[in-house]
Amino acid sequence: MIAPKDSIDSQGTETPLPNGASDIEGKAATASGERDGSRSSFNSKKTYVAGKLHTDIRVPFREISLAPTKSISGQIEGRADASPVILQNEPVRVYDTSGPWGAPDFQGDVTQGLPALRTNWIRARSDVEEYEGRVVRPIDDGYLSEKHAVGGNGKNDLVGRDRRARRKPLRASTDHPVTQLWYARQGIITPEVEFIAIRESGRQIENRESRIGQNDSRVTNHESRDSLDFAHPGESFGANIPEEITPEFVRAEVARGRAIIPANINHPESEPMIIGRNFLVKINANIGNSAVASSIEEEVEKMRWATKWGADTVMDLSTGKNIHATREWIIRNSPVPIGTVPIYQALEKVGGRAEELTWEIYRDTLIEQAEQGVDYFTVHAGVLLRFIPLTVKRATGIVSRGGSIMAKWCLAHHQESFLYTHWDEICEIMAAYDVSFSIGDGLRPGSIADANDEAQFAELYTQGELTQRAWKHHVQVMNEGPGHIPMHMIKENMEKQLEWCDEAPFYTLGPLTTDIAPGYDHITSAIGAAMIGWYGCAMLCYVTPKEHLGLPNKKDVKDGVIAYKIAAHAADLAKGHPGAQYRDNAISKARFEFRWEDQFNLSLDPETAREFHDETLPSEGAKTAHFCSMCGPHFCSMRITEDVRRYAAEKGLSDEAAMKRGMEEKAAEFAKQGEFYQKV
Amino acid sequence: MIAPKDSIDSQGTETPLPNGASDIEGKAATASGERDGSRSSFNSKKTYVAGKLHTDIRVPFREISLAPTKSISGQIEGRADASPVILQNEPVRVYDTSGPWGAPDFQGDVTQGLPALRTNWIRARSDVEEYEGRVVRPIDDGYLSEKHAVGGNGKNDLVGRDRRARRKPLRASTDHPVTQLWYARQGIITPEVEFIAIRESGRQIENRESRIGQNDSRVTNHESRDSLDFAHPGESFGANIPEEITPEFVRAEVARGRAIIPANINHPESEPMIIGRNFLVKINANIGNSAVASSIEEEVEKMRWATKWGADTVMDLSTGKNIHATREWIIRNSPVPIGTVPIYQALEKVGGRAEELTWEIYRDTLIEQAEQGVDYFTVHAGVLLRFIPLTVKRATGIVSRGGSIMAKWCLAHHQESFLYTHWDEICEIMAAYDVSFSIGDGLRPGSIADANDEAQFAELYTQGELTQRAWKHHVQVMNEGPGHIPMHMIKENMEKQLEWCDEAPFYTLGPLTTDIAPGYDHITSAIGAAMIGWYGCAMLCYVTPKEHLGLPNKKDVKDGVIAYKIAAHAADLAKGHPGAQYRDNAISKARFEFRWEDQFNLSLDPETAREFHDETLPSEGAKTAHFCSMCGPHFCSMRITEDVRRYAAEKGLSDEAAMKRGMEEKAAEFAKQGEFYQKV
Repeated sequence: MIAPKDSIDSQGTETPLPNGASDIEGKAATASGERDGSRSSFNSKKTYVAGKLHTDIRVPFREISLAPTKSISGQIEGRADASPVILQNEPVRVYDTSGPWGAPDFQGDVTQGLPALRTNWIRARSDVEEYEGRVVRPIDDGYLSEKHAVGGNGKNDLVGRDRRARRKPLRASTDHPVTQLWYARQGIITPEVEFIAIRESGRQIENRESRIGQNDSRVTNHESRDSLDFAHPGESFGANIPEEITPEFVRAEVARGRAIIPANINHPESEPMIIGRNFLVKINANIGNSAVASSIEEEVEKMRWATKWGADTVMDLSTGKNIHATREWIIRNSPVPIGTVPIYQALEKVGGRAEELTWEIYRDTLIEQAEQGVDYFTVHAGVLLRFIPLTVKRATGIVSRGGSIMAKWCLAHHQESFLYTHWDEICEIMAAYDVSFSIGDGLRPGSIADANDEAQFAELYTQGELTQRAWKHHVQVMNEGPGHIPMHMIKENMEKQLEWCDEAPFYTLGPLTTDIAPGYDHITSAIGAAMIGWYGCAMLCYVTPKEHLGLPNKKDVKDGVIAYKIAAHAADLAKGHPGAQYRDNAISKARFEFRWEDQFNLSLDPETAREFHDETLPSEGAKTAHFCSMCGPHFCSMRITEDVRRYAAEKGLSDEAAMKRGMEEKAAEFAKQGEFYQKV
Repeated sequence: MIAPKDSIDSQGTETPLPNGASDIEGKAATASGERDGSRSSFNSKKTYVAGKLHTDIRVPFREISLAPTKSISGQIEGRADASPVILQNEPVRVYDTSGPWGAPDFQGDVTQGLPALRTNWIRARSDVEEYEGRVVRPIDDGYLSEKHAVGGNGKNDLVGRDRRARRKPLRASTDHPVTQLWYARQGIITPEVEFIAIRESGRQIENRESRIGQNDSRVTNHESRDSLDFAHPGESFGANIPEEITPEFVRAEVARGRAIIPANINHPESEPMIIGRNFLVKINANIGNSAVASSIEEEVEKMRWATKWGADTVMDLSTGKNIHATREWIIRNSPVPIGTVPIYQALEKVGGRAEELTWEIYRDTLIEQAEQGVDYFTVHAGVLLRFIPLTVKRATGIVSRGGSIMAKWCLAHHQESFLYTHWDEICEIMAAYDVSFSIGDGLRPGSIADANDEAQFAELYTQGELTQRAWKHHVQVMNEGPGHIPMHMIKENMEKQLEWCDEAPFYTLGPLTTDIAPGYDHITSAIGAAMIGWYGCAMLCYVTPKEHLGLPNKKDVKDGVIAYKIAAHAADLAKGHPGAQYRDNAISKARFEFRWEDQFNLSLDPETAREFHDETLPSEGAKTAHFCSMCGPHFCSMRITEDVRRYAAEKGLSDEAAMKRGMEEKAAEFAKQGEFYQKV
């Protein structure tokens, strides 16, 4: 998308593109570019990159178009002549989690679900069979009979619809598992693997060559820090991110167990993504109704909302009524992997009485959810009977819901957890559908006081044992971690997890770095999340401002997602991910050149950036102005830097390199007087 | 404040105490406990601790009263008998920056200013004299004549009032400086020093003995993590925070230059505070009108608002008209030190034309502001002519306003910065009023691309040279730093600063750990601020959500302050500050015991915590309920832990220690089967 040559005015007024906006309502912007006041197009479009090994692959990206570069005078940066030449800025391509909902030409309908993107890939492997599947019963939604279900929920016509007409489930039909881990170990590059290689490479593979040719000399000056390609080397703590993410690299990481591709064969709607420390750091958003509030539609909408803003996976933590139906509609409409905690539903089936849980009920629930297409299960099998006494002396005991359910069961029966004793059978179920494990951290600390204590690390060590056993079944595994951890104790978590769990991906809640800020725990935890992401954590489970206080609404979900996109991106920068800094460079260049619209559109949340700017300077003219409200029209530090450059230009220095030489001659005189260069 | 024995119901309804609330309007809560719906008392009161060396010292704290501990059944935790004994929870004392405005019995009036707390201490040293002072002129407020000033500002009667009737300024009258550094070097424990020793010790000194005697056995069980005294050892990176902060320790740190006490003799209204890495991490809030928006009243209100939420110092960065009057009213009403960037006002005096700045105008401005009582000056004397070429190749050039002003001046004159060439004269002025230096970082990076570059570190090195020269004049010094820095490059900043600036306190903006989130830069920077605070940064300059976009309003100021209180506290925890974790422990105990009101009141922002809770569960009853909206009334993980404890109690285990023993016997059986204890 190249801006028209005379687009100077359009810099200041939002011009929705025909193929512009992500629209979470599924009511796409029309081809005529009709403007939807409440939903900005962000001046972007969906683009797709085709596969090479698998030609039916189309990997989606969002591409943000930019305005050309101009100097304050309308002249080109660094040139003294007055002819207004337009210097194009290439569009910026970003990773996109919004799925078809983010494509304006997609005429989606929540009651129909998303297209089954992966069905052909799955069936082409000839190792799955369609079958009748487990009978879905009213109790799955918390009702005693079908009559209760209808009667109890007249307002919600999505309940039961999935039971009356649904796609038949698939399961493994041969003597081998159908997991991405198994394929990877066989040396097979699945379409999912190639999809991910393209998706993770993003701009690097496709853009590098073409960009260098087409741009002006400033941008292609690679010695200069205003080259968009300039990137600091990171500090990776043993992570090893290659300059180019190849399909073979993806396969090898999955085969090694260092990364997972959560991709249940019954969730063909999902766009493949990977979780591993040699890839982009991912984030998860939790949603879910509860006994107290919220409806199915709200939860589906929260899922679309979370993925619009960048959630890489979504966990449905619903409890109470309609738990099966809610999950069904979330999965059918989700372009990202869905995770659950099956013990929550099992508990509903026994009326909330933990001691009445049985292996049979739990097993039935696993199959129910595997058939629906859940991509990963949190299983708190590391909460062993012998660890429970370790929590009694804690400041805040057991705060994980799954952990406390299992603790209660273990105590009531004086038996070892059935999750632990039936681990191999659980693995066999997971292997037949390619459900990944997210081995739960039921004993995670709920307060700073309890951080890194014996109970927490006892469970982590057990997670390592369970990881090895799952790998024997070719089941993909990640491990859950943190909770409340002060900054200086975060690294120990990452190091122990890498060692004890043999580099299986780590997936942590936060960690929250202090307990004293309820209402702001997206911030207390974004601090810890950024740090553990840097140290090697593969996926960060978001925390919303409502943590400890209530159920997140849409605003909270967005606030949590944005805070975690920040944490994940800060971690990618610190690790030295080769594609990460490009976006920072692009937005900083736009900022420095007073391309306000570009600055908004390149940001994680263009709507808020624009709104905040307009609060002080609401006129459209202010968005093309070469000043901002902080310093006012008469003075601006960025403007002065332009003056410095222009000053050099006026002295006959025609480009920056020459200017630098000229300035350095002068600087040399001063340097003689000081000792700076000797000592630094 | 001990809650009445039958106060079970009052746990759920806010009971304002007679000596309760902080009220920023200065309209105190009445003695009858009248409830102000919009301003919670947070169930707290001001308390004062007297000095020992200086008996006229009264150090303010805020003390939060708590409800008693009960189990779900109304029984006492861990006891099987049914008699409802009340277990008191001691009040929690917290550091308080709100000054007299936070005391409900203070009948303040902004036009009168605060009481001059320190005047007697200052005069008792017999080394200052009152004098007529510089004549304040209309140009100081940006007007050509008094007539213009009145005419141009009819709506604002605070302008000019300070010129017509003001307190005469003080200055040093003997042959020595009147700085806290000079006194400390002479071995003198000033009242300011003792005040700070008490303030920084907080709870530790006063409370420890009495608390241990009066509490129930649970709380005094120091082996248990639910003791409020339990604290993790930190990782201090060379900081050395003693268990008890004595006046002598404070003096020695100031004498060494490792800490400063910003305390202009003309700002007697301020309550002494200290900035240094062996003390609590401090935060600064920037306010200030600009040419585009805001009024004097708004800025004074922002100062009171920022200190209400916890700002330790406030910088007035006003530009445009009424700059002198705005500052005057801010200082007269501020209980915290005020910082400024004098070059901003000097620039106004020359109509915004940087090249017309002169040493004489700048010097006059320094005296003007020193006489008003500014406690620290940001001086960008490290921006040397020879460093300017280093910024030309940057992605975002010079983004500091002060830095770009001086760069422009240097280029225009082809001369070294007059701030640098007149450094010793500046020091002499500072020494006569005890204005501290905040040596500016005019070349701080404005983008990730420019982090830790040659220009930035060249200036930091020069800041070190300037620090040594200032110390020769007995002037207190801190150094400004960061900007945009990715996480892995933060530590290098702290290490170089400690080395090059000989451990003078570091004071950093953020750092922002990514460029891509305008609208959320309080979060991008809280991540970096927490980390650099942990590494040893003494004060964190806040960033509001409006950074890069517009001027902060009251909500933005609060959001910035709270984000930075989080960062500073997370840093204190990580450094192992002996008093830090107590508040986390107290709030976590309240959370675990479902003392909702206590959880709100102990938080950094009780209003928001309560509001978020009430959004899902608005009834007053829900605030005494033993459940929350996340899991609903039928299931709760914290409740299960209570069940675990009660279960043990029912088995005849009368306290936790016994329960633990009992459980461990059982656990031992399981441990035999595993290898856990050997390997961990």
